[in-house]
Amino acid sequence: MMKIYFTFDPRPDLKEDLLGEFPEIDFIFRSSVENDILKTAEILVTYGEDLNDEYIEIADKLQWIMVVSAGLEKMPLQKIAERGIAVSNVRGIHKIPMAESVLAHILAYNRKLPWVYDNKRNAEWNRKAKYTELHGSTAVILGPGAIGGEIGRLLQCFDVHTIGCNRSGGIADYMHDMVTFENLNTVLPTADYVISVLPCTKETHHLISEEHFKLMKNSAMFMNFGRGDLVSTEVLKQALLQNEIAYAVCDVFEDEPLSKNHPFWKMDNIMVSPHISSHSSRYLERSFEIFKPSLRKWLAGDKQLENMIDPQKGY
Amino acid sequence: MMKIYFTFDPRPDLKEDLLGEFPEIDFIFRSSVENDILKTAEILVTYGEDLNDEYIEIADKLQWIMVVSAGLEKMPLQKIAERGIAVSNVRGIHKIPMAESVLAHILAYNRKLPWVYDNKRNAEWNRKAKYTELHGSTAVILGPGAIGGEIGRLLQCFDVHTIGCNRSGGIADYMHDMVTFENLNTVLPTADYVISVLPCTKETHHLISEEHFKLMKNSAMFMNFGRGDLVSTEVLKQALLQNEIAYAVCDVFEDEPLSKNHPFWKMDNIMVSPHISSHSSRYLERSFEIFKPSLRKWLAGDKQLENMIDPQKGY
Repeated sequence: MMKIYFTFDPRPDLKEDLLGEFPEIDFIFRSSVENDILKTAEILVTYGEDLNDEYIEIADKLQWIMVVSAGLEKMPLQKIAERGIAVSNVRGIHKIPMAESVLAHILAYNRKLPWVYDNKRNAEWNRKAKYTELHGSTAVILGPGAIGGEIGRLLQCFDVHTIGCNRSGGIADYMHDMVTFENLNTVLPTADYVISVLPCTKETHHLISEEHFKLMKNSAMFMNFGRGDLVSTEVLKQALLQNEIAYAVCDVFEDEPLSKNHPFWKMDNIMVSPHISSHSSRYLERSFEIFKPSLRKWLAGDKQLENMIDPQKGY
Repeated sequence: MMKIYFTFDPRPDLKEDLLGEFPEIDFIFRSSVENDILKTAEILVTYGEDLNDEYIEIADKLQWIMVVSAGLEKMPLQKIAERGIAVSNVRGIHKIPMAESVLAHILAYNRKLPWVYDNKRNAEWNRKAKYTELHGSTAVILGPGAIGGEIGRLLQCFDVHTIGCNRSGGIADYMHDMVTFENLNTVLPTADYVISVLPCTKETHHLISEEHFKLMKNSAMFMNFGRGDLVSTEVLKQALLQNEIAYAVCDVFEDEPLSKNHPFWKMDNIMVSPHISSHSSRYLERSFEIFKPSLRKWLAGDKQLENMIDPQKGY
């Protein structure tokens, strides 16, 4: 009987569903990595943070590691490559909650919800504010991939003009226009929203500079939902203190968690989202919807799975 | 020279635009109704709250009243009908800000923004919450007209199943299904969101009852963005106290403004939006985009304007 080892313990309904669909499989659910189980498992399902070289050596029979996460930074990829073990992940799984997080913050800002909530707390019926609209505005999306495209798709539903920005400037889904990183300057003065979902690479480290903020509208909103090192904390802080832009929402920061005395907590024109924009109660359910068809393929002898990773390259 | 009397003083850029486009017209902008100007004006542009029978009698030359509001409750319609004065309004102008308000509250609730804002205020990096998604849920929209349809359109962009509910149950834009008021019961148990934008009529007065709340999911969100008398304050309060639903957002109430000691202020599972969901900085600009083509038609001798009102009927 084929053994599939989960190094975490999913919700009961998800487990039952799996057992019902694959009665021929011996599923083992644990909340840790145990050597004796590892030794006999052919497939391993993991969040990708609990493996190391030693474990990979112990796992004699292991042929496929399914990582229910988008990041692979903590995986012993070199060892996995040596052993020729297949690796797949759940790339793209974050796009829905992340895009909904971005839209939530943008709409809440326009409709003055932070202020509405304050008035509720103080039992104040206060209507005087400048309520604005998302409709008809312009957004620059840094990183128009799966997540950026989903943000672009939703923004276009609100009649927003979307401009994607990446290395090549090549065409991307749900972007009306595209620019390269080099030409970002040319579109920043037109943007009401500058939204980054860029990953962490050499090219994106401190990509956004003081000059970029000066080029943005004073009414612009800047959102960093990609990686914290897109902009230095000091550059962002100065841009906000000097009102180069109206508001920022950051889900990622150079140093996480923010320290208790970090200046951002006390500043009125930045919202701190503690790296939660991709969190979702549907995360595992959705991971399983990727895992199950892959498992069916695997059992049928087809080893070309969805979202396969080349462990040599790491993507 | 034709005289057009605005009983309010629009933004300078909007006035300039108008003067530039219609140099042949004598525009008069005041912040009140003045008898001597009223006597000579052929067209009156008003928010619709400053007229009475006497003014209509004084306005000898008046042929058309353009009301830059959707409600006509405070207009002296009988007198206007007697005089045969044309009336038009800006019906539909609220749909964009209202739909954005509804989506803002729904997304903010799913992505836990009220709680994120609280943590910001307290300088707390706290990630533990049940972040949910709008994607894939079901919404019942009471009143699938222009505003309800725009809400439905946006919800469908988030992959929401939309069920419209009105008197006839007849087909409506951006609704996957339709039910009559009588059959509302049959769809309430399926709804994650129950959203009303119903106007105030005999049929909608206290339309939502205790039974309706009992039929809703305990996880459901109820939103009243139509009229305050859709549900009695006591029925809504009890439904919330007994956790028949998870959360309510109301933009309208039986008695507005809410008194300082109203129970809703202190309750955690209802958000008070002080009748602002339609407010928008683009309101007048958009009203003028309706007024200008109408004025052009009128000047060309065509008296069949957009959004004409029958003053006998009041709609």
